[in-house]
Amino acid sequence: MPTPYLVTDLDTVAGRYAAFRRALPGVHVHYAMKCNPAPEILATLAARGAGFEIASLGELRMLQRAGVDPADVLYSNPIKPPSHIAAAHAAGLWRFSFDSPNELAKIAETAPGSAVYVRLRVDDEASVFPLSRKFGAGLDDAYDLMLLAGRLGLRPYGITFHVGSQSGNPQAWRRAIGDAGRLMSRLRAEGIEIEMLDLGGGFPARYVAPVPSLDEIAAVIEPAIGELPYRPALITAEPGRALVAEAGELATGVIGREQRGDENWLFVDVGAYHGMMETLQAEWSYPITTSVPEQATGPMLPFTITGPTCDPSDTMFTEVWLPATVDVGDTLYIGSAGAYTLAYASEFNGFPAPTPLFVGDLDGHSDGGFGNAFAGPTLTGSPLGGLTIAGGR
Amino acid sequence: MPTPYLVTDLDTVAGRYAAFRRALPGVHVHYAMKCNPAPEILATLAARGAGFEIASLGELRMLQRAGVDPADVLYSNPIKPPSHIAAAHAAGLWRFSFDSPNELAKIAETAPGSAVYVRLRVDDEASVFPLSRKFGAGLDDAYDLMLLAGRLGLRPYGITFHVGSQSGNPQAWRRAIGDAGRLMSRLRAEGIEIEMLDLGGGFPARYVAPVPSLDEIAAVIEPAIGELPYRPALITAEPGRALVAEAGELATGVIGREQRGDENWLFVDVGAYHGMMETLQAEWSYPITTSVPEQATGPMLPFTITGPTCDPSDTMFTEVWLPATVDVGDTLYIGSAGAYTLAYASEFNGFPAPTPLFVGDLDGHSDGGFGNAFAGPTLTGSPLGGLTIAGGR
Repeated sequence: MPTPYLVTDLDTVAGRYAAFRRALPGVHVHYAMKCNPAPEILATLAARGAGFEIASLGELRMLQRAGVDPADVLYSNPIKPPSHIAAAHAAGLWRFSFDSPNELAKIAETAPGSAVYVRLRVDDEASVFPLSRKFGAGLDDAYDLMLLAGRLGLRPYGITFHVGSQSGNPQAWRRAIGDAGRLMSRLRAEGIEIEMLDLGGGFPARYVAPVPSLDEIAAVIEPAIGELPYRPALITAEPGRALVAEAGELATGVIGREQRGDENWLFVDVGAYHGMMETLQAEWSYPITTSVPEQATGPMLPFTITGPTCDPSDTMFTEVWLPATVDVGDTLYIGSAGAYTLAYASEFNGFPAPTPLFVGDLDGHSDGGFGNAFAGPTLTGSPLGGLTIAGGR
Repeated sequence: MPTPYLVTDLDTVAGRYAAFRRALPGVHVHYAMKCNPAPEILATLAARGAGFEIASLGELRMLQRAGVDPADVLYSNPIKPPSHIAAAHAAGLWRFSFDSPNELAKIAETAPGSAVYVRLRVDDEASVFPLSRKFGAGLDDAYDLMLLAGRLGLRPYGITFHVGSQSGNPQAWRRAIGDAGRLMSRLRAEGIEIEMLDLGGGFPARYVAPVPSLDEIAAVIEPAIGELPYRPALITAEPGRALVAEAGELATGVIGREQRGDENWLFVDVGAYHGMMETLQAEWSYPITTSVPEQATGPMLPFTITGPTCDPSDTMFTEVWLPATVDVGDTLYIGSAGAYTLAYASEFNGFPAPTPLFVGDLDGHSDGGFGNAFAGPTLTGSPLGGLTIAGGR
């Protein structure tokens, strides 16, 4: 199989989904498909009962092509093009998030009578990718907005928040759920009982640095839910990265090895613009292994790893310890590459984006092994689960 | 025409090419197609005699589909996949850049007998996007490498350098040409006279901040060439941005207007991941106008402009002064958007990349107006050339 390619193990996706449901049995899942909208992943999760969370009409159309009922979809982007709201409403989607009077007016006009859920601004300082500058209403505003929703003929349906992507502190959920509870009490005094509490996303995936487990997060979330003034009919969450990141492994070929000053550089056939954009956005380490057979025992060297383009900004990693002999023709395997990779890959400089491949059981009905409709090649040389070596940029 | 779309005026591309040739009459042009590989632009430049510079085999294939002879193409990415070198060589491309012994060995093996040109590391501090950490050999190494090229059966053909993308200081070329001259003298003492001096790219486009004109740069380059120990048979350059950036205008629709803290925010249907990536990479201002008719006279306010996704990192601009009345349904026109925009646009969050449209004369033989094969719609409301308002992030 020529590099670059991205192998996704659908069994891992299914397993992570099951683990999420097990850790939080009373919490439904609406998968945040923005992190990886591959049809195979949508089908895998749909077959197991997941709902979906969208950011645009384009994403709803992808779900419809995968056979998902729009009634099972949450439109959680707080600011939406009016035409997208109207078309989603016409398709049968009935729940829209908002965080402002302008957005409420938009929804009332283009999707009259819809259910709406307010996005609270919450503490996201413990996350790698905070979101609260762009989105979210304060508690007082959220209260006013839910009352306004009713006056506009909308159904004041729920409350949501987002603790930031890849959150490292379960207490962020506790505080956010506490805020939601205070809003619930105030709204109840006005005769409004919400039907949905949406815990948002931010559930971390395992890359290299330790992260709280789903069980540790659940141990904080469950009692916080228990302290709410009442239990809404639907409690859901929008995991994305936590379900799919660890299911993906990106294989990239070494096309050059050079000494640049004191540094050893590897040039590979995938860069920041071909799927590894998040390496530019944060101090971020991925588990990286190689096809070099003696890697477990031979001497190691620190490498800078850059992409194939003429642009230095596609440099992904520095100080990644790899076998000293790694060279042109070898393959690097970047683990935990299933989220936010192909979702914004381009073909910058004329280099192709990684080919998506899938292994595992798509529909939950076959006996494991390769998926029925999406059989990939047998993966030889892939050290998934083997020695992992951290690299951070 | 629904937003988002990117209109490219091919007459402007042709005009910028003519201006480049006029400013530097003895210098050929090999267009750096990585900045915008649209077939219409390739055809426009090919029809007027330009050569091309590529970063990958993928780009060569695009050129071949546009009818360009690979013999007129320079492969200037210093580090290349061996399979790309072999296939380009087989297609008739005969000139390859390099900056290391490893790359020379690769070329000698996969494209024996080819002409090679060494990439010098030069001062790129005056550029917005410096390149010298990733690429380039020092003067002594470059000398050794050119001798090694001959011993490997390759043709020690030329010298190149890159002063960094969007360079603001013409003296960078003077110093680099001086370095090339010193290398030429040393090589001549060994019996090697180079056939090509390639001045690389870095020629700036006009966004908002003032940049040196082509004439000002030529006034530095021409005398520097005059001081070389001899004049190589071919002197060429690799402008990209300078030829196409100003030819493009990106139209994006306002989908939301909100107050966030003290800031006025506009949400538009294009973000950093749909073509405006460079807004994330540098302090960078674009000329921005709107469809609001009274913009020249009404009151103005400063806006933060963000994309349509759930990701705050697709925020493109802050403190852009726009008409106070701008709102949902209006259009923003982002000027100088012809380079490094669609080249790495994705459909992140399910939002489409801008539709490419072309106006102007493709082949130089019709009487202006719309291109023959690529007629676009009449552009109404586009204030190209009108009031420009700076916004920087």
